Amino acid sequence: MAAYEGIIADLIEELGRLPGVGPKSAQRIAFHILAADPADVRRLAHVLTEVKAKVRFCEICGNVSEDAQCRICRDPRRDPAMLCVVEEAKDVVAIERTREFRGRYHVLGGAINPIDGVGPDDLRIRELMTRLADGAIQEVIIATDPNVEGEATATYLARMLRPMGLTISRLASGLPVGGDLEYADEITLGRAFEGRRSIDV
Amino acid sequence: MAAYEGIIADLIEELGRLPGVGPKSAQRIAFHILAADPADVRRLAHVLTEVKAKVRFCEICGNVSEDAQCRICRDPRRDPAMLCVVEEAKDVVAIERTREFRGRYHVLGGAINPIDGVGPDDLRIRELMTRLADGAIQEVIIATDPNVEGEATATYLARMLRPMGLTISRLASGLPVGGDLEYADEITLGRAFEGRRSIDV
Repeated sequence: MAAYEGIIADLIEELGRLPGVGPKSAQRIAFHILAADPADVRRLAHVLTEVKAKVRFCEICGNVSEDAQCRICRDPRRDPAMLCVVEEAKDVVAIERTREFRGRYHVLGGAINPIDGVGPDDLRIRELMTRLADGAIQEVIIATDPNVEGEATATYLARMLRPMGLTISRLASGLPVGGDLEYADEITLGRAFEGRRSIDV
Repeated sequence: MAAYEGIIADLIEELGRLPGVGPKSAQRIAFHILAADPADVRRLAHVLTEVKAKVRFCEICGNVSEDAQCRICRDPRRDPAMLCVVEEAKDVVAIERTREFRGRYHVLGGAINPIDGVGPDDLRIRELMTRLADGAIQEVIIATDPNVEGEATATYLARMLRPMGLTISRLASGLPVGGDLEYADEITLGRAFEGRRSIDV
């Protein structure tokens, strides 16, 4: 006999397909939903449907947007000379939270990953080259993830962009702020040495 | 500026209300949904709505059911003389997985918890007494959680049931199978001593 059957089993199965939701979590969420206010559950079901209907990708940068162009691309106060290249839309949000960057973004839609069969043509690199063609953008900050795929993508992009005479940079790697040196992995620690800076006293 | 706005913010907020889904998970799930096949998302939204419409509680035992009576209460092969009392419907599933118990269940709908204002009258104890009235049930196994609230509920039930001349038992507490003795907390280890059994050689 299966542990669950019918619609409850269906719900647990659907929930279990979500990233980071294991069988135990799916069961906990399902029982939460069984006990929840029907209006709350209707709202969740509605917003799930709505998000697929309303959200599309910005025709300029590839960020998620409810309009043809996202609000960052539409914002005239953003510096048109600076472009930050990221893998995913959620990276835009992470960088926006720092309030360190006032330029615009380009979302690649992933990173080069030969094992998963993702090559440069599967990313929005052609769109990036088109954006750079008119010369308005003068600095490109490559903010792909600090892992093997992100580094490979950064190197690939840097080589493609070098002939264009732009300023190209890569986000610094090093020890996370607030972290303990002794718990840093050896690669991070190695990067922190490589990228060490002189202290002005 | 908020990190997200519009329907994506709504989705992240709704997902973040689910148990065990923190802000980071809610964001990850939301972006998964944005990228997912629309048919998959429709199915999830549909099953959420359906589960609220279809699932009710068994009129006999209080377990979740798509019919007036759950399939365990309807099953004539289940032993009508044995009743296992649990806090929640998910406890029924956990016990069914063991295949150790062939009687029927009674779901209390929680445990006595004065801090949260849950008293005996908030649980399905009156329904339990009604079920026991005709004398068909001869043994009651109290399978509330092995925590303060579960123990309090078990003691309360045991006192109420004692005059009825039933066999009343409580699930054993002790070391989890496959666990390391040195990692057991002192209360569990204490229980394991209390409940020690002679070894037949």
